[in-house]
Amino acid sequence: MLIRSLIRALVARPSIPKGRRLHPFIKLLSERRSIRHFFDRDIPDDDLDTILEIGRLSPSTANLQTWSFISLRRAEWEKTFGSPIPFGAPLAIAVCVDLDRIRRAGFETPPYPLSMYTIGLINACLAAMNMQIAAHALGYGTVMVSDTGRVGFMHTRWAREQLALPPGVFPVCTLLVGSTRMEALLIPPRLPRELVAMKSAYTAPDSKLLNQWYEEMGAVVRAQNPFMSIHRRLDMYLKELPRVEAELARLVYGDESAPHSVSSAGKGDDA
Amino acid sequence: MLIRSLIRALVARPSIPKGRRLHPFIKLLSERRSIRHFFDRDIPDDDLDTILEIGRLSPSTANLQTWSFISLRRAEWEKTFGSPIPFGAPLAIAVCVDLDRIRRAGFETPPYPLSMYTIGLINACLAAMNMQIAAHALGYGTVMVSDTGRVGFMHTRWAREQLALPPGVFPVCTLLVGSTRMEALLIPPRLPRELVAMKSAYTAPDSKLLNQWYEEMGAVVRAQNPFMSIHRRLDMYLKELPRVEAELARLVYGDESAPHSVSSAGKGDDA
Repeated sequence: MLIRSLIRALVARPSIPKGRRLHPFIKLLSERRSIRHFFDRDIPDDDLDTILEIGRLSPSTANLQTWSFISLRRAEWEKTFGSPIPFGAPLAIAVCVDLDRIRRAGFETPPYPLSMYTIGLINACLAAMNMQIAAHALGYGTVMVSDTGRVGFMHTRWAREQLALPPGVFPVCTLLVGSTRMEALLIPPRLPRELVAMKSAYTAPDSKLLNQWYEEMGAVVRAQNPFMSIHRRLDMYLKELPRVEAELARLVYGDESAPHSVSSAGKGDDA
Repeated sequence: MLIRSLIRALVARPSIPKGRRLHPFIKLLSERRSIRHFFDRDIPDDDLDTILEIGRLSPSTANLQTWSFISLRRAEWEKTFGSPIPFGAPLAIAVCVDLDRIRRAGFETPPYPLSMYTIGLINACLAAMNMQIAAHALGYGTVMVSDTGRVGFMHTRWAREQLALPPGVFPVCTLLVGSTRMEALLIPPRLPRELVAMKSAYTAPDSKLLNQWYEEMGAVVRAQNPFMSIHRRLDMYLKELPRVEAELARLVYGDESAPHSVSSAGKGDDA
């Protein structure tokens, strides 16, 4: 069972319709993988500026551009955070929600914090994906991290302190960029298309297909480390969520007292 | 002043460093604009499947793929929502957060609703941007809408009812795709790069540059309709936010009682 799931995961390939497979840009998009190993080689300013420019041109709600991109090269990151950029990357771009700038421009932030949080998050993520694709198109390896390196939505309090961000500005994720040897990597098991892409109406997932995916996920985790299971790996995230929840509630609502459903569960250790 | 701002907006071009301008993918990414006019021509299944496949291959938090894409062609949309697809598009893809599927796969949703909402939103937006770029690469015009057509984060309650979505599943935006005459459109005024892309540390925006952008935004709005102002246009969104806030609070926390700061302001008309 484990072996069969692992083989299925290993042989999985993008399933692009035949007539579109050779389309160079579709090929590029389908070959993007998260890369976690970088060479010790700096990135020219022109490439960084190109990536940032594509970020700047991203679409946003009512064109409000509620984002800020803080790029840090190796030495700058180490000076700011006291540790190397994760995975040895030469460049990191902290992709932040920025609700402060539009306030300065004269749009008084309306008293609807969850709506504004939602708008900010949507726009920052569109820009993050756009920049990741730009970097990938320029031949770099890339990965978005939100926990590793701690400059993302899972550590907003710490990251805001380290980066001295004003109220309304916080990182969602960090895009790491660097030269890499592009390997034919395994695709982390994707849900089969019929489970995520529905035609004309929502349909509940087929449980057999869903279990199959779940077993593939588990098999890949176990192949990387026989003592690790998918649940144990997710628990590493889960145990951080009480703190994350309290920090996000403070970010969104100005204090940590989220609604009843969270008020007791949502208190983290350092709340 | 108005004329000068308008001219500035009209002549604005992407500022890609010289050596990267002819890079075909960078050119493609820099030329993506939101298109709101489509021809009456259907999209082949192979193109739709290619777009959905690129969505499926998007990166996500811990590879949890907390998204669902519901594609609707003209007749299907009209049957479901009782109105045509906005802007005459032949195809709409409702990009949804899906926190129901992972629950079915055996990951009990942890009691940290704001964290789970954040994770869901991030992933759905990464997929939305990835699919928009794929559709643009295939030569289509595209736009993401969240209010127009009402299948997005601004109308979660209505859209969830119309699409019969289970708890934990809701649309963030709808990607419209269709053939179009690619025009050299004006770029909706983007903030200057020095205001959004910072090197090594966050810097507060230069107020002169910020005002200049604000005037460009206003000039473009006024050029399209002399009786419209930027504030009046934003007010059209703002007046919906009490309802949006209540709906999102119910979505995230299971009821509409958000924390103190919103409890009075957040009650919409139909709350």
